[in-house]
Amino acid sequence: MSVVAVDMGGTQTRVAHLAGGRLHRRKAFPTRDVDTLVAAIGAVAPRGPYAVGIAFAGALDMRRGRILNSPNLREWQDLDLPQELGSRLGRPVYLANDASCAALGELTRGFRARDFAYVTWSTGIGGGFVSGGRVLWGNTGMAAEVGHIVLRPDGPLCDCGKHGCLEAIAAGAGIRRLTRERMGSALSAEETVARARAGEKVPADIVNTACRAFAQGLSIVSELLEPEVLLLGGGITLSWDYLGPKVERALRAFSRNAPPVRLTELGDDVGLYGAAALPEHWPEEWPPPTRSSSGAPGS
Amino acid sequence: MSVVAVDMGGTQTRVAHLAGGRLHRRKAFPTRDVDTLVAAIGAVAPRGPYAVGIAFAGALDMRRGRILNSPNLREWQDLDLPQELGSRLGRPVYLANDASCAALGELTRGFRARDFAYVTWSTGIGGGFVSGGRVLWGNTGMAAEVGHIVLRPDGPLCDCGKHGCLEAIAAGAGIRRLTRERMGSALSAEETVARARAGEKVPADIVNTACRAFAQGLSIVSELLEPEVLLLGGGITLSWDYLGPKVERALRAFSRNAPPVRLTELGDDVGLYGAAALPEHWPEEWPPPTRSSSGAPGS
Repeated sequence: MSVVAVDMGGTQTRVAHLAGGRLHRRKAFPTRDVDTLVAAIGAVAPRGPYAVGIAFAGALDMRRGRILNSPNLREWQDLDLPQELGSRLGRPVYLANDASCAALGELTRGFRARDFAYVTWSTGIGGGFVSGGRVLWGNTGMAAEVGHIVLRPDGPLCDCGKHGCLEAIAAGAGIRRLTRERMGSALSAEETVARARAGEKVPADIVNTACRAFAQGLSIVSELLEPEVLLLGGGITLSWDYLGPKVERALRAFSRNAPPVRLTELGDDVGLYGAAALPEHWPEEWPPPTRSSSGAPGS
Repeated sequence: MSVVAVDMGGTQTRVAHLAGGRLHRRKAFPTRDVDTLVAAIGAVAPRGPYAVGIAFAGALDMRRGRILNSPNLREWQDLDLPQELGSRLGRPVYLANDASCAALGELTRGFRARDFAYVTWSTGIGGGFVSGGRVLWGNTGMAAEVGHIVLRPDGPLCDCGKHGCLEAIAAGAGIRRLTRERMGSALSAEETVARARAGEKVPADIVNTACRAFAQGLSIVSELLEPEVLLLGGGITLSWDYLGPKVERALRAFSRNAPPVRLTELGDDVGLYGAAALPEHWPEEWPPPTRSSSGAPGS
């Protein structure tokens, strides 16, 4: 099946044409507007795709095809992207959360386990779950919000408005805040880990706190999902040689039967592969996206 | 389909014959041994069932059909119950965790939503999840262990050996421990709630702590599953008129989009209905239980 896969992040959009099971003619460009996206899709699939799958970094209602909000993509807010793009292309457009798409990419191209949890540890913390060989989308496609489980009710304020979310303690943004508070200058996660490795006490404390909270989050995911494996991705896991032993030790303390932890091997393409698999893996109980074209109903 | 449903608890076993969509000839008796169970199944289905479904209160490996352990059912430990019972009856025997069976009962007979989380609040805290119209069993059937998510890493010791599990803080056993520590005598959850209602300060504190922790647990379930509804059951929810407002207020503080909370309406039969639906809802990727009989392979 010929599909155009779109991985739309806060700053960058990546587009590729999937045909014969492979990604062709990858294109990357700054995320802008629908016109730019239409042009890029035309460039990677000049003879037209059968369908378009989009992995989107932000809150959305997958069932209704609507973007709710995204911190870095305000101009797309409240947009019915499947409808808007579908009417311009005359093709069905499938839209889903980027972390769940990554799990779908792992299901179809990567780890291929029947039950696993995919968790990204980066500026934020996101997740995608696969249960019984299917992505666990949730009621509107916003399940697996691992970064927003509340671990410390009186903990730091999260960007989402709640206090003590895992993300506010352990993700890049939380580490940056903690370094500012305790060291006077905001450091990236990478820099904080580098200083912890070099033996500085405060950065080491901050990293240990983050690892413990991250492990607590993983243990909760394990108790609730009972995955066969925990698959990790995201920029912070690039320091897994240093962080891994700390996370795994805490994970064992918080768990009765901790599943094995693995790092994803699909790299940056995981979201594109997941987006490409959306048409085939769309929940059968949900209305399919409108295949609109000029003059057709719904355009 | 004619099925015998078994709901096997730590002290009591209930058996019924499901035919024409209804439960017939319910029998309840103290949980004892396989002989007693075989006799009860024979009594409720004299002409023999097509299959047997068992909801079991304890840890098990559903995929291999093996009981791992159960605090109150030690004599059943390490038993391959489907094999043992199946060879005596010459029928397939399906075995699953009781809380997931309750969710299956709700799916087929009760709330019937596509995505929901069922949580029991009682002496312990258990759960069963339905996602996309299917029970989320997990890798071996032990998913949805809501009671054993760690909320307070330096909190009270749980029966499971970990510290700060939701169950150790908010369930009946946790409330009993807290009343013993803070009031000098161990009170049941029911008695503690009665004293809190009457205006006693320490019981009111303990109840508030339990409600807040329970709500934190529900909020975590919501962020990870995005259920359409949270369905609650179990003895402690009998005091929902008093506890409900406290739990729901805290749930809103811990959640971005808290789903509605409903109390289950199926009552005690929810586990039997779930057990009866096991043959039809058994994960297709798992080996079916051996249909053994004397002389047949596997007996």
